[in-house]
Amino acid sequence: MKLAVLGVGLIGGSIGLAARERGGAEVRGFDPDPGTAERARELGVLDLVADSVPEAVAGAEVVICAGPVRALPGLVREALEASEAGVVVSDVGSTKLELAESVASMEQATRFIGGHPLAGAETAGVENSRADLFDGARWFLTPTDRSEGLLFDRLHSFLAALGARPQAIGPAEHDRAMATISHLPHVLANVLASRAAETLVDGERRSEVGRSFRDTIRVAGANPAIWGDIFAANSDAVAAEVDAVISRLERARDLLRAGDSAALADWQQRAHDDRVKLLESAVPGGELFELR
Amino acid sequence: MKLAVLGVGLIGGSIGLAARERGGAEVRGFDPDPGTAERARELGVLDLVADSVPEAVAGAEVVICAGPVRALPGLVREALEASEAGVVVSDVGSTKLELAESVASMEQATRFIGGHPLAGAETAGVENSRADLFDGARWFLTPTDRSEGLLFDRLHSFLAALGARPQAIGPAEHDRAMATISHLPHVLANVLASRAAETLVDGERRSEVGRSFRDTIRVAGANPAIWGDIFAANSDAVAAEVDAVISRLERARDLLRAGDSAALADWQQRAHDDRVKLLESAVPGGELFELR
Repeated sequence: MKLAVLGVGLIGGSIGLAARERGGAEVRGFDPDPGTAERARELGVLDLVADSVPEAVAGAEVVICAGPVRALPGLVREALEASEAGVVVSDVGSTKLELAESVASMEQATRFIGGHPLAGAETAGVENSRADLFDGARWFLTPTDRSEGLLFDRLHSFLAALGARPQAIGPAEHDRAMATISHLPHVLANVLASRAAETLVDGERRSEVGRSFRDTIRVAGANPAIWGDIFAANSDAVAAEVDAVISRLERARDLLRAGDSAALADWQQRAHDDRVKLLESAVPGGELFELR
Repeated sequence: MKLAVLGVGLIGGSIGLAARERGGAEVRGFDPDPGTAERARELGVLDLVADSVPEAVAGAEVVICAGPVRALPGLVREALEASEAGVVVSDVGSTKLELAESVASMEQATRFIGGHPLAGAETAGVENSRADLFDGARWFLTPTDRSEGLLFDRLHSFLAALGARPQAIGPAEHDRAMATISHLPHVLANVLASRAAETLVDGERRSEVGRSFRDTIRVAGANPAIWGDIFAANSDAVAAEVDAVISRLERARDLLRAGDSAALADWQQRAHDDRVKLLESAVPGGELFELR
């Protein structure tokens, strides 16, 4: 099996490592930063460093675009143009609809199947690559009705060999789900951190913050360059989630102002039941995976 | 030293244990449930079980009311009426202003000093009492200008002997700070859990939730009976925080709809800076303590 990895950070690097160690693949890689690609080869992530996208994809059966969200539309188009019939091109971006639409008009769109592994780590960079990063992790795939079934099968088998659990989902449905379970928590963390900083940090009294607070702001301000792009790429779905939360907060605010402890306990009980329902419906082992 | 504990759950029980083991105190306890009080004596939390509040406070130098928030105004009034001059009465409730106001008109209000230990655990009940529960934990005290200084000193020394770090704060300031760092995160957790349950749980597809999501909903629906009372007791301050968050979410929603990734990255960067500022201003070791 011959694999091309375009963009060699934590995710691209871990794909390369896992493909070499578990899939027995020959991995060719390209990165816009030649030093990064060379470092990846030294770390055993790549067999060969390519100087360009066409050189990397030449002869590959599977091409994975693992650059930042902002760069993906250009990178995927370039990979599709440079590769031949019978080559499947995928990506690892956190949002899928915008990318799918930007590729849809291409003749080669039948060979593109978007992807999104629900895996990651607090640390970035090829130095932190791990062959086991995708063990048991859900890997969403977004084939369209134009996608070639044979290529979907090949990509699916390749990802399963890395240790992941591939699953097909529509790109719009994917982005709406991510808006709720990943992007919205980041928005709430940002807002809570900024509100608390406004009221608590006065330079005199040192604030006391407990675990519930720390948990809620843990992802506040996560990698601003990456998240600016993610929010922009999924802006409609995230804005809709924020609107839904605003409505719920307005109702909670009215309930609070009424000050009826029995009604507030009922509200708390409904949140309890919703939380239990959510965790019961979650895939076992899902707690191991960090959403980007 | 003679101590009376009124209400013997996790907090009251841990105060009793710590006072006996560390302060060499004689601890007399009362609980509306006689079985609970007897169990506390068996566990070594109490020296003596009292059958009533007056019996428990007879001869005590320090009285701690450790019942649920809803019961505190009545319990504190009863303890003040039953105890003699020179006896300090305190409590451990999560909100302070409403209680202070309900006691203010009493002649004995000079002997009441509200308290709130920033300590707790996932588990409740006297069986989970620990003598080290308050080690290094901030313990807010809310003396007023009518409080007797000598009694404040005695209470302060007693709590320090338990291992806590007592600190005076105004009751209104206390409740505003708790609204931001404790009660508001609970509101956000509730709202996120209920929104996600609405959109994700459809009985067919099992949802995938990552650590950031789980962290944000961890406290959703925490003990509904307790939290209905806490929200009701601090409803004005929490409602004001919710309003502040709604304003910030409306601005974030507008920023999202505009879809400018550079502006979104700037917003993300400000949240990052606010988070760093908050954590830098936090008291070292504060992450060990769970706010109720």
